[in-house]
Amino acid sequence: MNNNDLQVQGFLASAGRGGIRGKDRLDIGLIYSEVPAVVAGVFTTSLVKAAPVLLDMERVRSGQCRAILINSSIANACTGDKGRRMALESSAFAAKALKIPEDMVLVASTGVIGEQLELTPFEKVMGRMAADLSSDGFMDVAQAMMTTDTVPKTAVRTVIVGGKDVKLLGLVKGAGMIRPDMATMLCFVMTDGDVSSDALRIMLKRSVNCSFNLITVDGDTSTNDTVLILANAMAGNSTICENNPSGMQVFQEGLDELLKDLAMQMVEDGEGATKLVTIEVKGGRNDEEARIAAFTVAESSLVKTAFFGEDANWGRIIGALGRSGANFDPYSVDIGFDDVLMVKNGMGLGLEAEARATRVLKQRKFKVNINLNAGTSICRVITSDLSLDYVRINADYRS
Amino acid sequence: MNNNDLQVQGFLASAGRGGIRGKDRLDIGLIYSEVPAVVAGVFTTSLVKAAPVLLDMERVRSGQCRAILINSSIANACTGDKGRRMALESSAFAAKALKIPEDMVLVASTGVIGEQLELTPFEKVMGRMAADLSSDGFMDVAQAMMTTDTVPKTAVRTVIVGGKDVKLLGLVKGAGMIRPDMATMLCFVMTDGDVSSDALRIMLKRSVNCSFNLITVDGDTSTNDTVLILANAMAGNSTICENNPSGMQVFQEGLDELLKDLAMQMVEDGEGATKLVTIEVKGGRNDEEARIAAFTVAESSLVKTAFFGEDANWGRIIGALGRSGANFDPYSVDIGFDDVLMVKNGMGLGLEAEARATRVLKQRKFKVNINLNAGTSICRVITSDLSLDYVRINADYRS
Repeated sequence: MNNNDLQVQGFLASAGRGGIRGKDRLDIGLIYSEVPAVVAGVFTTSLVKAAPVLLDMERVRSGQCRAILINSSIANACTGDKGRRMALESSAFAAKALKIPEDMVLVASTGVIGEQLELTPFEKVMGRMAADLSSDGFMDVAQAMMTTDTVPKTAVRTVIVGGKDVKLLGLVKGAGMIRPDMATMLCFVMTDGDVSSDALRIMLKRSVNCSFNLITVDGDTSTNDTVLILANAMAGNSTICENNPSGMQVFQEGLDELLKDLAMQMVEDGEGATKLVTIEVKGGRNDEEARIAAFTVAESSLVKTAFFGEDANWGRIIGALGRSGANFDPYSVDIGFDDVLMVKNGMGLGLEAEARATRVLKQRKFKVNINLNAGTSICRVITSDLSLDYVRINADYRS
Repeated sequence: MNNNDLQVQGFLASAGRGGIRGKDRLDIGLIYSEVPAVVAGVFTTSLVKAAPVLLDMERVRSGQCRAILINSSIANACTGDKGRRMALESSAFAAKALKIPEDMVLVASTGVIGEQLELTPFEKVMGRMAADLSSDGFMDVAQAMMTTDTVPKTAVRTVIVGGKDVKLLGLVKGAGMIRPDMATMLCFVMTDGDVSSDALRIMLKRSVNCSFNLITVDGDTSTNDTVLILANAMAGNSTICENNPSGMQVFQEGLDELLKDLAMQMVEDGEGATKLVTIEVKGGRNDEEARIAAFTVAESSLVKTAFFGEDANWGRIIGALGRSGANFDPYSVDIGFDDVLMVKNGMGLGLEAEARATRVLKQRKFKVNINLNAGTSICRVITSDLSLDYVRINADYRS
């Protein structure tokens, strides 16, 4: 994807080297909307929320936003009064440089928990960053957001609403669930669509539920997880709102696709990850049971080490299903890998099926097909393997 | 501990080399009570239960037992009708050799899921094993139960009930939660105490809850987990029953200690484990919240890799607490390692505390002290680290 695609009319961006934690790298990003944009946000469900998350949760209530100030290296979580003050002061500082009201600036941080953010890095680069704002700046922001990410992650989609092109541009860093210490998933979506505040909130929540909320690497959740969407209405489309169901439908589909694309990139970018695995549970008695069955398999350390070992070990999968809390008849379960059925009615199909399944597991991407045959509910979760590098990265990270 | 200690009057044991899965090692064990013993059992909560578990669940209802037949290498789980038949036929075969009723024999299996157990190995060794039964045979049984265990695990306790010595002897293999594929925790306790059936059932459940149910290595549960206790009344004590509360109390304490000892040995024997860590959560609003907080920390892959890396990474601990579902004020939480307080009121105490905590983590055993300061409930869970060897063992296991 070239930088030309990473543009949406009315949005500008830039990044700077603040030297947070003494590192000479892009670590501060700024996203700016030339006009007030409608905003919606989804935030971490953790009880322990970082200072920028708490500030944003208040500010998105107004429904409007002009800018997002992002930093990496320090999460500004578990930082008490000073942390709150730094979130406020850094946003005020950006507002002043951009000549916009303070409460129209949102903030997002990612990095080490428990260390204090200082104002100095922002003072150092803000003037230059405000002057550098450009429609070409989004790749720099995607880089400035990175912590242990190995590549910047972006995606664009265009949908047509009432004859008008509406563009969506998304930036993501991850993955909170891969290493929530150098932590957190942050995602920012800019669109030139004209969308009502209510519709934006509803659609964002739905899209997050079918994308970021269906990936899991180790089941951990960060103190800083933040997804923000800004819509500046410059596409001139008929307003997307609850009275415009066809508009909502196409926009929702576009947003779903965009966030699924970004979510997949997040799982793929786990340094520790050598496999990208879709766990599909069909035949659940209800949605909740399909969900817990899929997540229990996707998060089982034993299942994930077997993926790493390219071992078609269905005993571990059926073991995870058995303790998941889902209800089913153990002798009705089918399990397969891609197109190879390995278990029929709860029993293994023998060595030949195992040999074929083992070949499937040698691929970098594959799907585990589970049918509980207890109902009609389905859940699909994306996960990775549990590799030696996962342990190395996470055991060594702060040293 | 020498073999002389591994005796309880009226109980005999022996083991044999059945050659299950073609290996020349002790893989079948037999425990025999010279008189009918009162029996109680606790079994896996998994929906997917192995054939021997299903058979034992029926048979313990009678409250009486004479023998336990144990095999390793094959779990006899997910084996359908043939598996059920093999559980029945092997127990019938042992009953015949021992000249006792078939329904007085319990069975227990551990090993690979999905492979069929054959009768041949039992036919090969049963005559010899029945002849070899001896009060010195328990160490052989502890060895025959082993799968990926590196050492046989046994413990004894003596309590005094109404002036009489009552002895308890326990054998365990594990840990289901370390590698539930070569799977399963099996535990057998023999006592010469005179205990009523009801009292035995109640006390076993309580002891399991405060021992095996408070250890976790990776949160996985096996299809075969089984704990059985046999009491043959040969100590001649006043019957331990609900009308004998002081008897129940001392026996309960002895059983608690015995099972805690065995549980600790299970966690320590994880080949992958380099650390033995107690997670203590105090100040929970209620027991359930203390429990989910402790287990979420104990099972977090990020926390466990930090233990392996000897990294006093309290950010990951507070992250796990935040997503656990327990309610507390993030700025009231205290976290320490052994006697080093690292976090006070939700904020880090700085580099000196960190340096001291890092020294604590270099030990093989340490305790994480968490105070949620939200109530008075406490939960203490024993866990291990997540090491490179854990991944190696579990990725390589079947190949």
